[in-house]
Amino acid sequence: MKRRELLRGAGLAAVATSLAACGANPGGASGDGVSSQKFAWKMVTSWPTNFPGLGTGAAALAEMITQASAGRLTVKVYGAGELVPAFEVFDAVGRGTAEMGHSASYYWKGKAAAAPFFCAVPFGLNAQEMNGWLYNGGGLELWRELYAPFGLVPFPAGNTGVQMAGWFRKPIESLASLKGLKMRIPGLGGEVMARVGAVPVNLPGAEIFSSLQAGAIDAAEWVGPYNDLAFGLHRAAKFCYYPGWQEPGPTLECMVNKAALDSLPKDLQDIVALCCRAVNDAMLAEYTARNQQALDALVREHGVDLRQLPPDVLSALRKASEKVLEEVASADPMARRALDSMRAFRSQAKAWHAVSEESYYANRG
Amino acid sequence: MKRRELLRGAGLAAVATSLAACGANPGGASGDGVSSQKFAWKMVTSWPTNFPGLGTGAAALAEMITQASAGRLTVKVYGAGELVPAFEVFDAVGRGTAEMGHSASYYWKGKAAAAPFFCAVPFGLNAQEMNGWLYNGGGLELWRELYAPFGLVPFPAGNTGVQMAGWFRKPIESLASLKGLKMRIPGLGGEVMARVGAVPVNLPGAEIFSSLQAGAIDAAEWVGPYNDLAFGLHRAAKFCYYPGWQEPGPTLECMVNKAALDSLPKDLQDIVALCCRAVNDAMLAEYTARNQQALDALVREHGVDLRQLPPDVLSALRKASEKVLEEVASADPMARRALDSMRAFRSQAKAWHAVSEESYYANRG
Repeated sequence: MKRRELLRGAGLAAVATSLAACGANPGGASGDGVSSQKFAWKMVTSWPTNFPGLGTGAAALAEMITQASAGRLTVKVYGAGELVPAFEVFDAVGRGTAEMGHSASYYWKGKAAAAPFFCAVPFGLNAQEMNGWLYNGGGLELWRELYAPFGLVPFPAGNTGVQMAGWFRKPIESLASLKGLKMRIPGLGGEVMARVGAVPVNLPGAEIFSSLQAGAIDAAEWVGPYNDLAFGLHRAAKFCYYPGWQEPGPTLECMVNKAALDSLPKDLQDIVALCCRAVNDAMLAEYTARNQQALDALVREHGVDLRQLPPDVLSALRKASEKVLEEVASADPMARRALDSMRAFRSQAKAWHAVSEESYYANRG
Repeated sequence: MKRRELLRGAGLAAVATSLAACGANPGGASGDGVSSQKFAWKMVTSWPTNFPGLGTGAAALAEMITQASAGRLTVKVYGAGELVPAFEVFDAVGRGTAEMGHSASYYWKGKAAAAPFFCAVPFGLNAQEMNGWLYNGGGLELWRELYAPFGLVPFPAGNTGVQMAGWFRKPIESLASLKGLKMRIPGLGGEVMARVGAVPVNLPGAEIFSSLQAGAIDAAEWVGPYNDLAFGLHRAAKFCYYPGWQEPGPTLECMVNKAALDSLPKDLQDIVALCCRAVNDAMLAEYTARNQQALDALVREHGVDLRQLPPDVLSALRKASEKVLEEVASADPMARRALDSMRAFRSQAKAWHAVSEESYYANRG
């Protein structure tokens, strides 16, 4: 049973049942069971080409697939706007303009209200828990079901780990400090901020620095030290707050056009799934190493004032988050199922991580 | 640079440089660059066949390789004692009795003093940090260097997450409770326990339950709820303590005979590396989901008394751990390099995880 679960996790379920059918691959299988047919795929992404972490992860995924298939499946990566705009990745892969895409499911909440649950929701799961829920807690099955009507097959393909709460030009002393605060914070996190008195605005990443520096906005969240340092946000706002309650462990996605995936020989389908899983492991490792180097630079070299959000602010955000998630779920049956499934997993994860990860962090000195 | 790092992380560095050499594969490459040569490998392991988590992980790894290679590289798994005993995996793969092995590097400290650093050391790194250190912090390079003289290439291939401190027949009220306590705890963790007054003993996993129940030992650490529940340890000792300071994030290893790896066409070498990385991701997800279910059963159904080790005990263990690690490093140049590298990474990881993972755990309510 466990092995079966592991295989399903890696997207190899179909393969496990087709062991006996080896050699019966579509697309010109040779007598040795290896198809020599070649495929040239496009991968559209929501990131600038080679953007640290996200863009480099997408590039590594494409290169891994190309290499592990010995060039039978080549994948060419397109940065945001090169083939389609950042927020048209979902549609472009669905209609087959590109065979695959690298993005984040919370961008698609306008198309499917449940979509954010498979990336990140306020006060949701951290990276380790997202992987547990998606692969071994029913999350990925729900995600596959959600994307099926769009002709898409999703794979977890990266995670940034816990993000930061954001950069603020003035200190946040209490809940009152949020009143009227104009903050760049998109999605459900923005919804939650509105409930506690702030004014959320959405801006593309590239516009955050100039808006913050000009005072057009009072605060902004982006990702975390690794990416924030690259944008120079510390030069536009002095106070950096944690933790990133709005994105505690965002899972990035690789979505594949179902017809394109089905047209591949089984071994190439497996390679696509394996490479997604490998980049899922690789991206979090990269963020873990780079975030801590960048944090070190921000604090030691740039004198950033690093602070935890006050307890009353965190408490208000928690309450507002549960309300917002409940409203999303009340309006959409798939969102209801996703929220219930995530909440059940989170409840057990809290108990387990309290005596494992959390206790270890607190006691290692 | 980032993409290159990601690729190196997944073991694909050699491949990235051989892009232009596609089709120049050894072993009967076809005109399409895909070798049709077949390889049948053996994988020896230190676990009983299909032992939950560890054995199922090894089995999944073998099956992934077999499937993704379309049967060009088949891997047959042998449980501990089937082909070689559990603790002869290292030698067996080194001499080519088997082409690969799934085990834990801390078993080989008698052969290479630095080996434990690449699995787990007391008060070392947790799972997320191990991945960051190994792939993006120089750890894997050191590990590869350590194993090279033995003709072995190591790959990270799984992690259990933070383990438990163990099962105790009597409560641990203070440091005095450890005086003369006979505890099953192997390796460096046992060394540390000896320094604080306990009497460490080593026993194979299968003998823990009967020894603990008979009172031959007073305490025992094994893995965590998922594996401990399966052994029924809660029926032999009432008190379960956390956190697992002795193994905060043990990385399992897949070691490959270097000559065997070199004899594979490049695409199959990539597939081996990818499958290791995929199972590295998969095993931690499985433990995360199963540990929390098992903990729930232990507490709710079996009335286990779950307690955190007292502060004076944790403090004494911390001090003794640093002394033991320092002694290991003083006696061996590679251990010195591994300890210094790990400590430098841990110091930054503590600062980063204090404001990310740790702060999020503490504040999500």
